[in-house]
Amino acid sequence: MSRATKDALTALTNRFGDAVSVAASVRDHHAQGVTAHATRPPDAVLFARSTEDVVDAVRICREQNCPIVPFGTGTSTEGQISAEQGGLTINLSQMDNVLRVSAADMDCTVQAGVTRKALNASLRDTGLFFPIDPGADASIGGMASTRASGTNAVRYGTMRDVVMSLKVVLPNGDVIETGTRARKSSAGYDLTRLFVGAEGTLGIITEVTLKLSPVPDRMSAAVASFPTVADAVSTVVSVIQSAIPIARAELLDAQQIAACNRYSKTDLLEQPTLFLEFHGSEQHVGEQVEQFLAIAREHGGSDLRWASAAEERSRLWQARHDVWWATLALRPGSRGVPTDICVPISELPEVIAATERDVNDLGLIAPLCGHVGDGNFHLCVLLDPDDPDEASRVAELNRRMITRALDVGGTCTGEHGIGTGKIPYLVRERGAGMTVLAAIKRAIDPRNIMNPGKILSVESFPPLS
Amino acid sequence: MSRATKDALTALTNRFGDAVSVAASVRDHHAQGVTAHATRPPDAVLFARSTEDVVDAVRICREQNCPIVPFGTGTSTEGQISAEQGGLTINLSQMDNVLRVSAADMDCTVQAGVTRKALNASLRDTGLFFPIDPGADASIGGMASTRASGTNAVRYGTMRDVVMSLKVVLPNGDVIETGTRARKSSAGYDLTRLFVGAEGTLGIITEVTLKLSPVPDRMSAAVASFPTVADAVSTVVSVIQSAIPIARAELLDAQQIAACNRYSKTDLLEQPTLFLEFHGSEQHVGEQVEQFLAIAREHGGSDLRWASAAEERSRLWQARHDVWWATLALRPGSRGVPTDICVPISELPEVIAATERDVNDLGLIAPLCGHVGDGNFHLCVLLDPDDPDEASRVAELNRRMITRALDVGGTCTGEHGIGTGKIPYLVRERGAGMTVLAAIKRAIDPRNIMNPGKILSVESFPPLS
Repeated sequence: MSRATKDALTALTNRFGDAVSVAASVRDHHAQGVTAHATRPPDAVLFARSTEDVVDAVRICREQNCPIVPFGTGTSTEGQISAEQGGLTINLSQMDNVLRVSAADMDCTVQAGVTRKALNASLRDTGLFFPIDPGADASIGGMASTRASGTNAVRYGTMRDVVMSLKVVLPNGDVIETGTRARKSSAGYDLTRLFVGAEGTLGIITEVTLKLSPVPDRMSAAVASFPTVADAVSTVVSVIQSAIPIARAELLDAQQIAACNRYSKTDLLEQPTLFLEFHGSEQHVGEQVEQFLAIAREHGGSDLRWASAAEERSRLWQARHDVWWATLALRPGSRGVPTDICVPISELPEVIAATERDVNDLGLIAPLCGHVGDGNFHLCVLLDPDDPDEASRVAELNRRMITRALDVGGTCTGEHGIGTGKIPYLVRERGAGMTVLAAIKRAIDPRNIMNPGKILSVESFPPLS
Repeated sequence: MSRATKDALTALTNRFGDAVSVAASVRDHHAQGVTAHATRPPDAVLFARSTEDVVDAVRICREQNCPIVPFGTGTSTEGQISAEQGGLTINLSQMDNVLRVSAADMDCTVQAGVTRKALNASLRDTGLFFPIDPGADASIGGMASTRASGTNAVRYGTMRDVVMSLKVVLPNGDVIETGTRARKSSAGYDLTRLFVGAEGTLGIITEVTLKLSPVPDRMSAAVASFPTVADAVSTVVSVIQSAIPIARAELLDAQQIAACNRYSKTDLLEQPTLFLEFHGSEQHVGEQVEQFLAIAREHGGSDLRWASAAEERSRLWQARHDVWWATLALRPGSRGVPTDICVPISELPEVIAATERDVNDLGLIAPLCGHVGDGNFHLCVLLDPDDPDEASRVAELNRRMITRALDVGGTCTGEHGIGTGKIPYLVRERGAGMTVLAAIKRAIDPRNIMNPGKILSVESFPPLS
């Protein structure tokens, strides 16, 4: 630990007492999370209780150029929570108050540590819900920071779309509000969208103002099997072009279905399968389901099933809910490594076919699960943590997938972010644009104390002149 | 004209020949547009034909620190096209090619000079349309630059939502692509959203990749009169909370309706009136109209009218289409000065009532027209160009409206932007956040050559340290 970091820790302990911990178990816990990447623990952890706490901590750290890493629930997948250069991790999970809900305006303001499930629980009597659902019960601040999405994005958008404003503590300790509660604005640069997805590298989000959605009168689910991935994707393309406002459209490949049948005791045809959900009035949902079934049949869909009652829907979607555990059960003792490319939807059939060839070539087990309405899909690649050769084949698979995504106009990450895991891929995706990212990072965080070593190596790019 | 600008013009003429003009009529034309603000003509105008033209012009200007102002159709309202410090205006209207349309992916790429109507004309046989509709037939590049929206925003979003990627010429002449064709991405800072709404102060947009929407099977229009503005707004709040996906929800106040009845020979009740539009399948649109009419009746709605055939819809909406001209006809010889606040929708009744009191107090004529589903509304304030006292009362009205909007959590501009007209109001709205705007401007355009004097006075804010 450097002299400067020591001085920072002394000042932090003086200010915060027991809320700062240097215990090894606490520090290690904050380097674990769900990521498969190598991570480093911080030198200390602060459990912040207010924006003022965060301001004081940032001011103290800044004085000593001590790095700061924000932490919500530790559920990011690309190493975002690793303290690459040591320093202080600020745990925001105790900032868990829903500060305000406006039913008339369908918006709310929450502290950054509120999780998505806690928010939805607190909205139970309002007729509103918060639609963004990454797999984990992540914190809203963390979800904003990674520009998270999930299965509802095709209808309800991503964190980019639902965040109206953020309270952010800047690297110099100033507090700003990035937006307003107006539904739209043309007032200057869009700082909200700049901090959404910045992964804590430009400042620390302490409060989030969100758009909410009305709970639909009726929800129906449908499941259909298809001869090929291309048939399933064509079905979704047709559905979207027909302006059927699907709420969810999830694709599982044949291997994933087989894993689910085994794990969840379902009896689905072991073929590429779509899981859909429809939201709306009773009449409109009925119409949507009928339209979908007709389109699915045109594309060779079979084993068509649908349901409206909550329990039946849940049973129908069981296989989808359990993909992660079903996959891990294929080879006990393995870790799951998630991939995350997103491509124009017309490219999906070809990209998925090539990906499945790669999985075979490389001798890997990697079932597929995709948010196919967005063109985003994941493999859950099984990795034996003690097999370095398998690790290098997993890395090669990821490299091939990302290369292919970029070749067809897609992105190296649909919803997981860059962290430490995808820095070189971001450079390939952004090209000359990296100088602008670096210019922004340098301008807002000139001391490079905010989550350093994530998204980009700022020193690799010259200032704009 | 400075020596440096002269040198720049010589170099530009050598490179571009007749495509550069210094004729007074051409220069004056590029300072006019529709704005009521004082503007200054540039020293020269370049009619660019390609991104390469823009790159060469930017490189030449940069060499001499010669200011550059981008120009599409000149339909911005806040002085965005004024050459505040002279220099070169780059007219992009000849860059008017639709470069690519993908029906399967429902997206397209256009040159910045394509207008929204030209784009829609070119999409006629695709089953797709581009939904953003500011009043004017603006260029897509200009609409991106002001983060424009219009009457469809409540359903289809604003330019923030539909722009997928931009080709931008940076102030140093480098060309970047800000995004990809993926529907979503978590790959680093969101440069697309940073350049959308930057009003040309960070670089020049030369190409735009856009999401398109499927043309709905059916469109229906409905019109309803209400005893008070509050009743009309409550109706729209109820409609949105009932998850009825209205495509448009426009409010005209009693004075505006009176003006329209006179101008358009309509026979509407001279009361606050909602104009709505519903898009979807035949069955779903029918259901939406029925639900709307029931809600409208609950809130005292009367004189309810609806129509589906294109001609009838158009006739029903006639008053809405003609508001600008109907207002100007109230006092021939006047100019129309548009205001543009946006507030949380629950605040609209109170804000509109207070605004109407201000209009009376100040002795002005200013009918109201609002995109009420977004909380955004405009007055068209009549101004006698030869009456400085009236001009100061118009400014006072605008000041009061913006103050009130900011007080209730709204914004000083919903869709028109800052330009030269709202610089002090942006400072009030953004507060401490202005240092971040200035840091970004300084980092990307360190010579301050890109549309200088718009959005912010960068020298007013110290660098972040």
